[in-house]
Amino acid sequence: MAEKEKLAIVVFSGELDRALAAFILAVTGASMGMEVSMFFTFWGLNIIKKNEGGIRSKGLMRKMLNFMNRGGSKRLKLSKFNMLGLGTWMMKRLMKDINHPSIDELITMAHEMGVKLIACTTSLGVMGLPEDAFRSEVESVAGAAYFLGEARQSKVALFI
Amino acid sequence: MAEKEKLAIVVFSGELDRALAAFILAVTGASMGMEVSMFFTFWGLNIIKKNEGGIRSKGLMRKMLNFMNRGGSKRLKLSKFNMLGLGTWMMKRLMKDINHPSIDELITMAHEMGVKLIACTTSLGVMGLPEDAFRSEVESVAGAAYFLGEARQSKVALFI
Amino acid sequence: MAEKEKLAIVVFSGELDRALAAFILAVTGASMGMEVSMFFTFWGLNIIKKNEGGIRSKGLMRKMLNFMNRGGSKRLKLSKFNMLGLGTWMMKRLMKDINHPSIDELITMAHEMGVKLIACTTSLGVMGLPEDAFRSEVESVAGAAYFLGEARQSKVALFI
Repeated sequence: MAEKEKLAIVVFSGELDRALAAFILAVTGASMGMEVSMFFTFWGLNIIKKNEGGIRSKGLMRKMLNFMNRGGSKRLKLSKFNMLGLGTWMMKRLMKDINHPSIDELITMAHEMGVKLIACTTSLGVMGLPEDAFRSEVESVAGAAYFLGEARQSKVALFI
Repeated sequence: MAEKEKLAIVVFSGELDRALAAFILAVTGASMGMEVSMFFTFWGLNIIKKNEGGIRSKGLMRKMLNFMNRGGSKRLKLSKFNMLGLGTWMMKRLMKDINHPSIDELITMAHEMGVKLIACTTSLGVMGLPEDAFRSEVESVAGAAYFLGEARQSKVALFI
Repeated sequence: MAEKEKLAIVVFSGELDRALAAFILAVTGASMGMEVSMFFTFWGLNIIKKNEGGIRSKGLMRKMLNFMNRGGSKRLKLSKFNMLGLGTWMMKRLMKDINHPSIDELITMAHEMGVKLIACTTSLGVMGLPEDAFRSEVESVAGAAYFLGEARQSKVALFI
């Protein structure tokens, strides 16, 4: 049997708009029969953090960083026109209006369709993020070599 | 006869600098004999909106969004050093100074060289953009599946 | 003998976080036996400018631009949470804390591992940057056609 074509995405950005673009591509790829993996690094980790609870981390600087940079899919903001949250709220309304799935629904859909969600080891180390900071859809933690290993076998590799 | 090699670009960003990068790559690819398609989504749609006239859309929120996010190649700003337009104006002068084509000229060149310009269906729906909001060089409207279909046949696929 | 697999990266952004992502991928690719080339354009050129001395350029506007947009790996800022330099300083401390190489060290490592660092001709022309504005690790100056030539032979091509 022929191997499945692959799609590998680095998700570096933590804004709502780029998160949507990444997950729409991932879900579309999966629906076309592609094997999709998403590798979350830096601000992109915010997308896959749990929405509830605090983040336990060690040391004052990491505590401060994880307080300011709390993340969680429900806290993401647009990269433009956030306007103290008004623009982000409007964008969510506009999506609902045409029955477009929310980022939260897209994450669940992606997981159910077999998209692999991977958190970047190095970022976790630098930012002092424990593995339990992430939602249950996140499959594992891996480094840049893992991404490149996937990417070199992929038909399409994107950095978002 | 051998098939042409393909280049597929998602243009997500609507800033002048990233628009220039996308079109310089597209035009260069076409001049090297590649078959190029550009898929405009989210803020990237601003690059290919008509410069003249208003945008007709329905509902108060969409009218507001399309007023604030008017777009059009002549209204794009630099992602850095815009400085109330001064930096953007300077960059355009510097480009003219060395006879570098403007973004407007690059769009026309790309079209004449056979680069396919595609607007993203989903973004059009969310933002309430009618198809006649776009300039004549835009060939058609299509979804993420179209882009991935092109990308998986492409030698090079980029997200800008 | 089999040819080496290639990784080609456009580095468009000049922020510390994206610079780190680009160089971590480049160094990782090289350590996996890939042949890596990085093509620096627009703000990305800031990453590979010399840290010392001024930048000689002609004409008032270019002098102004290169004064404001001075660059050099030690002057890069985070794209988020820069907070007048406090966030950037904290990120550097957090990296040091887990013995992660700095961006400066990554540039040297990349060069020593054979990663090719290329500066974009067009950007140099527009911005009026002399070739001696760049650090010694930068191998040469080339245009978009060079990047696409590399990218079409590459297993993985990314735009960062």
